[in-house]
Amino acid sequence: MAGSSFGKIFTISTWGESHGPALGVTVDGCPAGVPLSEDDIALYLDRRKPGRNAASTPRREDDKPEILSGVFEGRTTGAPIQIMVRNTSQRSGDYDEIKDIYRPGHADYTFDAKYGFRDYRGGGRSSGRETIGRVAAGAVAAKVLAELGIKVEAYTVSIGDIQADVSRYDYENVSQNGKSSVSRDEFSKRRRETSLKTPTGMPDEEADKRAMEYIEKLKSEMNSTGGCMECRINGVPAGVGDPVFEKLDAMLAGAVMSIGAVKAVEIGDGIEVSSRTGSGNNDAFRIENGNIVKKTNHSGGILGGISDGSEIIIRAHVKPTPSIAMTQETVTKDGKETDVNIKGRHDPVIVPRAVVVMESMCAITVLDALLKGSSAKLDNLLKLYKS
Amino acid sequence: MAGSSFGKIFTISTWGESHGPALGVTVDGCPAGVPLSEDDIALYLDRRKPGRNAASTPRREDDKPEILSGVFEGRTTGAPIQIMVRNTSQRSGDYDEIKDIYRPGHADYTFDAKYGFRDYRGGGRSSGRETIGRVAAGAVAAKVLAELGIKVEAYTVSIGDIQADVSRYDYENVSQNGKSSVSRDEFSKRRRETSLKTPTGMPDEEADKRAMEYIEKLKSEMNSTGGCMECRINGVPAGVGDPVFEKLDAMLAGAVMSIGAVKAVEIGDGIEVSSRTGSGNNDAFRIENGNIVKKTNHSGGILGGISDGSEIIIRAHVKPTPSIAMTQETVTKDGKETDVNIKGRHDPVIVPRAVVVMESMCAITVLDALLKGSSAKLDNLLKLYKS
Amino acid sequence: MAGSSFGKIFTISTWGESHGPALGVTVDGCPAGVPLSEDDIALYLDRRKPGRNAASTPRREDDKPEILSGVFEGRTTGAPIQIMVRNTSQRSGDYDEIKDIYRPGHADYTFDAKYGFRDYRGGGRSSGRETIGRVAAGAVAAKVLAELGIKVEAYTVSIGDIQADVSRYDYENVSQNGKSSVSRDEFSKRRRETSLKTPTGMPDEEADKRAMEYIEKLKSEMNSTGGCMECRINGVPAGVGDPVFEKLDAMLAGAVMSIGAVKAVEIGDGIEVSSRTGSGNNDAFRIENGNIVKKTNHSGGILGGISDGSEIIIRAHVKPTPSIAMTQETVTKDGKETDVNIKGRHDPVIVPRAVVVMESMCAITVLDALLKGSSAKLDNLLKLYKS
Amino acid sequence: MAGSSFGKIFTISTWGESHGPALGVTVDGCPAGVPLSEDDIALYLDRRKPGRNAASTPRREDDKPEILSGVFEGRTTGAPIQIMVRNTSQRSGDYDEIKDIYRPGHADYTFDAKYGFRDYRGGGRSSGRETIGRVAAGAVAAKVLAELGIKVEAYTVSIGDIQADVSRYDYENVSQNGKSSVSRDEFSKRRRETSLKTPTGMPDEEADKRAMEYIEKLKSEMNSTGGCMECRINGVPAGVGDPVFEKLDAMLAGAVMSIGAVKAVEIGDGIEVSSRTGSGNNDAFRIENGNIVKKTNHSGGILGGISDGSEIIIRAHVKPTPSIAMTQETVTKDGKETDVNIKGRHDPVIVPRAVVVMESMCAITVLDALLKGSSAKLDNLLKLYKS
Repeated sequence: MAGSSFGKIFTISTWGESHGPALGVTVDGCPAGVPLSEDDIALYLDRRKPGRNAASTPRREDDKPEILSGVFEGRTTGAPIQIMVRNTSQRSGDYDEIKDIYRPGHADYTFDAKYGFRDYRGGGRSSGRETIGRVAAGAVAAKVLAELGIKVEAYTVSIGDIQADVSRYDYENVSQNGKSSVSRDEFSKRRRETSLKTPTGMPDEEADKRAMEYIEKLKSEMNSTGGCMECRINGVPAGVGDPVFEKLDAMLAGAVMSIGAVKAVEIGDGIEVSSRTGSGNNDAFRIENGNIVKKTNHSGGILGGISDGSEIIIRAHVKPTPSIAMTQETVTKDGKETDVNIKGRHDPVIVPRAVVVMESMCAITVLDALLKGSSAKLDNLLKLYKS
Repeated sequence: MAGSSFGKIFTISTWGESHGPALGVTVDGCPAGVPLSEDDIALYLDRRKPGRNAASTPRREDDKPEILSGVFEGRTTGAPIQIMVRNTSQRSGDYDEIKDIYRPGHADYTFDAKYGFRDYRGGGRSSGRETIGRVAAGAVAAKVLAELGIKVEAYTVSIGDIQADVSRYDYENVSQNGKSSVSRDEFSKRRRETSLKTPTGMPDEEADKRAMEYIEKLKSEMNSTGGCMECRINGVPAGVGDPVFEKLDAMLAGAVMSIGAVKAVEIGDGIEVSSRTGSGNNDAFRIENGNIVKKTNHSGGILGGISDGSEIIIRAHVKPTPSIAMTQETVTKDGKETDVNIKGRHDPVIVPRAVVVMESMCAITVLDALLKGSSAKLDNLLKLYKS
Repeated sequence: MAGSSFGKIFTISTWGESHGPALGVTVDGCPAGVPLSEDDIALYLDRRKPGRNAASTPRREDDKPEILSGVFEGRTTGAPIQIMVRNTSQRSGDYDEIKDIYRPGHADYTFDAKYGFRDYRGGGRSSGRETIGRVAAGAVAAKVLAELGIKVEAYTVSIGDIQADVSRYDYENVSQNGKSSVSRDEFSKRRRETSLKTPTGMPDEEADKRAMEYIEKLKSEMNSTGGCMECRINGVPAGVGDPVFEKLDAMLAGAVMSIGAVKAVEIGDGIEVSSRTGSGNNDAFRIENGNIVKKTNHSGGILGGISDGSEIIIRAHVKPTPSIAMTQETVTKDGKETDVNIKGRHDPVIVPRAVVVMESMCAITVLDALLKGSSAKLDNLLKLYKS
Repeated sequence: MAGSSFGKIFTISTWGESHGPALGVTVDGCPAGVPLSEDDIALYLDRRKPGRNAASTPRREDDKPEILSGVFEGRTTGAPIQIMVRNTSQRSGDYDEIKDIYRPGHADYTFDAKYGFRDYRGGGRSSGRETIGRVAAGAVAAKVLAELGIKVEAYTVSIGDIQADVSRYDYENVSQNGKSSVSRDEFSKRRRETSLKTPTGMPDEEADKRAMEYIEKLKSEMNSTGGCMECRINGVPAGVGDPVFEKLDAMLAGAVMSIGAVKAVEIGDGIEVSSRTGSGNNDAFRIENGNIVKKTNHSGGILGGISDGSEIIIRAHVKPTPSIAMTQETVTKDGKETDVNIKGRHDPVIVPRAVVVMESMCAITVLDALLKGSSAKLDNLLKLYKS
């Protein structure tokens, strides 16, 4: 099960299974001197916790992070940061009846095909709990980015057919004649505050309410739903990302698609570009306060794989939770057809909890791209090494 | 400009600029003993050549590949395979007027931001010609996969709003009561033959005709269009791909998003899953001729990041060619606003030529995942090393 | 502090500081299906424990390993294996007086130069305790190799000027007319048993006794000594290793030189080859029982970076423990000259405890090379994937 | 034949066989803005050319490098630099008689064991000609290092039993009461000039003469000899290298051991440390002109894997050329015993030509370590990205 690491310079490696003693993440390559505490991590982990509300599973977990290495007197030392979370709410019994059955939409069958056998308790390594490591590492990346003035923010855009109205926070959209009584920053602040408050993670209280009703209905029907989430990254200077295979958008797409249940990723205007004309899709360059800016941002902040200084925008489409209580057709390990009803505690939609996972993966990706870029120019080296 | 390599075991590294002496690719980690000739490579390169028809740029290029290493007596030796193509049709003069201007939708500005200066001739490293290396490597990967019974096929799905009817080749869709006078394989063969014949790469001659008319219209308007392409991979056994960051879909998404102009990637049913319910999206397992199969294939052949034995399906949405002849607003290198009309030979839509690039990246990704998996089980090792 | 990982397929990543809460290792890419228990790990860790005898520091540590992930029902699952050891015997107080002083022969100064500050307690990340992770991972690698019939064995060759007589176990050396009353295997067994029993790790009880007297003398003089250790690997089939930068000997040299205090590495006859002639150094090939063998083994089992089927032999030269109690000249963090007497519990020679670290690094390196080789031939792929 | 790449940020990948159409190297991750020409490369390649004198093979090769990408208007662009050398002096006929024979001391047998067959002409991929790529890349690395004030220099220390007197250039050694009429820099200049002039690469004309006589004698006896070479690196600031597996000395050891025929690597005082005491091996720190310096340099410029600001010193022991004309015992591919006399043009000792290969690998390793370090401190990032 190689492939548990991500990032070239800022490298994260998650480990642990749903029902083992613990899980966590090693963060290697974090610059030395960054303030970091367990509270910084806990703040992020709280956002992926279950049991907060009707939108998620009733499992209660503490998920208290322990920093076991790499931090000394409150600052990172440059050494690998080990962050561990103990598994405390294990009910392995729930899984006994399905240990010989391949659940539809799950990785049971493919794990057996690859490894010959599997840890069947709660999805084992393919459990959503693996994302604890990603989120803990995301908290670290966010701390570093904050020092550089870079902010990463994700929220829920839709659940089933119910769309949040996000355009209300777009300064360009709301302003009249380029003016608005509310500032650009204030709009961002309101969007963030709202999305952190609503149970669905939508930055729209009204849509959130309708979405919650829809979720309740699905629960009663023993069904589940998919949804869409979006991440915006502000403050990335132009010039971050590499131009060929490690394009910033390619790395982001890979990072976000590696989150279980994500089935599509869009950058900027995404799928809409395929039916557009060049004149309608190109972003004209202009000068604003002496800086090069774009009049529009169809590109989503990336040109030729490298950041262009505008807001970076990514969207991810998430499939419905495959664990549903209604009867489904499936097969056993031994190749017999059977029916299955998935028991246990499962989210009717995972988007509200996945939002912080997306935010984490994006933060990690951007930070890694930025660190890789430190040696792109001879000028940079002269600045650092020539006295 | 690190990041010019892709793949962990089967590693490809492209090199070369649009208007330098040559460009190419190094393929390292190719298994020894695979039959390979320059003709195998040329067959693939021909599909990305410009000038074939009205859908692409009138530049005529030979793009004749030379294998400089790694092949002996017609078979790969396991050594790095170097494939070079000389640049023969350079008209650098076309680019002189834009050397101090940042073309909208291009990477001119971001390259300068990252590296301090750039090779401005024809996009330099960010030119579409970089994909010559990808396609040459894709030809190699396809040869290896063919030995294992794996086929990779990409085609054009839409150009602007014009959709090809691909469903006509879906056995499940066409058959009545599970029966059809035409076999599954015959459908695939027809789809492939049609898409290789039409100028747009659509497997639908009627839609192709309309698309070509649309392209002609855009050319006369000095404009361009986007489009969508799709790749299908058949014959991959269940168990290929890794479960966390190197999920097969994550690797495919990163690979395909690294193709210039791609702005969205979908796996299986892609963006549609976000508005579905679990019962409508899960693929039930059944037994067919003693094998585990899925009744539907919403998942696109991948579960938990690992192949499930069904057809693997990926879609990519491509933005309109940014190089258009109509007047556009932009800025100069020195920060002055100006207008620009892009001259030179440019495709009004790049999808027809990008199809083989997508096919190549998918072949490379699947092969690499497969090679990585060779050591997943102790049983595999015992089979190979224990006599 | 990137660079905490080693290996491409079988990847180990150590984490943790001398005086933090815990330290350990993540092992990713271990094949699934290998029997593994905490006892397997403990057996290796016991060999690097201090306090066993006069040759090592009087610190008493339990170093009890916990497997936190990657093992299910007694077998590896293919998921990352997390092995943690709690730090229980911390006496940070010992280090307070040297927190502003750069100890000669230590990494205090270089860490400060690189990271701006450091965890000064007990060497922090550069402490010998970091090798706990290496040894735990080595135990895992040894388990996999054992399944393939490969044995890795290291022992002490010399301490100061005192040499162990290792030649007594060389069948070729001891036999008369190619015959000996003791079998080849029996010699190996005796060598192993003796080296595991003696306090110095020498496979020679008489030399061991003299070495221990020398060590006692150095302790009384508040001094320390260096030494040499050797590793032999048997059962590796011909064909393991890569021919250019990842030559098996290059990977072994890097692996062994990465053990703190190692200052020279030799393969086979090592430094002696520089004064030899070709006719005196080439190993003639012969046929023995139908197999290709070498008449001599000057090459140490590797030709052109690839194993040749003979015994693989590596030697490492280790510098004297830099922590000595006698007065030394040095400087403070602030650039003032001063004297220092290192207090605390320190080994007068680290070789006896480093032997198992060398054995571990060699096992890990060989296993990784072997796993990488699984995809070297098309034949291998056909064996694994073609039914 | 994976493993043809070296370096994490400054990555070189060699390709090509002895008797194929061409061979070369791709250099990825070179900072943009470094002046580079084909003459810079040729200067290095000239030093590894055969036929210069009696110490090397009479083959005459032009080895003219072509830069095919990555350089624009005389400066590196940050894009991959492709450097190719055509093979012009191929006499494949020489190799026909040995295509079914395994030459002693060569990789013929191990290549067949690994890949199932091999390019038998002139060693194919394991030929010394592979080092053309290394040396071309070394020339690039040396250019970057020179911008930072770092100099890398290798020379021959011994051939057979004949030792060059290198100590005559050691300021500390020559000076009386810390004073000398010749400056430190002047000593270095003289050493360099002498070693570039002598046929053996020794910085000692008298020893060189004796070594050449010895070589002539061996040639007449159809035999060959080994030797030792040394590399010194000056100007590396303290703080370069990583503390665990990617220690600067570990990376150097791996890099140098990956040069064919190297069988031992020493750092600083190397093998001598194993018989020393701590008090005799520790380097005391002192203050000199306000800077922290070491009174001695037993460590060879590296402490805990990180550069300490002193001169970095590495030595490599090279085995005798295995291709000798005298009769040797060996076996055929089909497992039959036979005799072989190696014909063709072979160096009686490879050290004089390998010196520039060692210099190149050391330059590449140090540059890569330095680039990796650019993101070690938050302060560095703030310097580069915070305006």
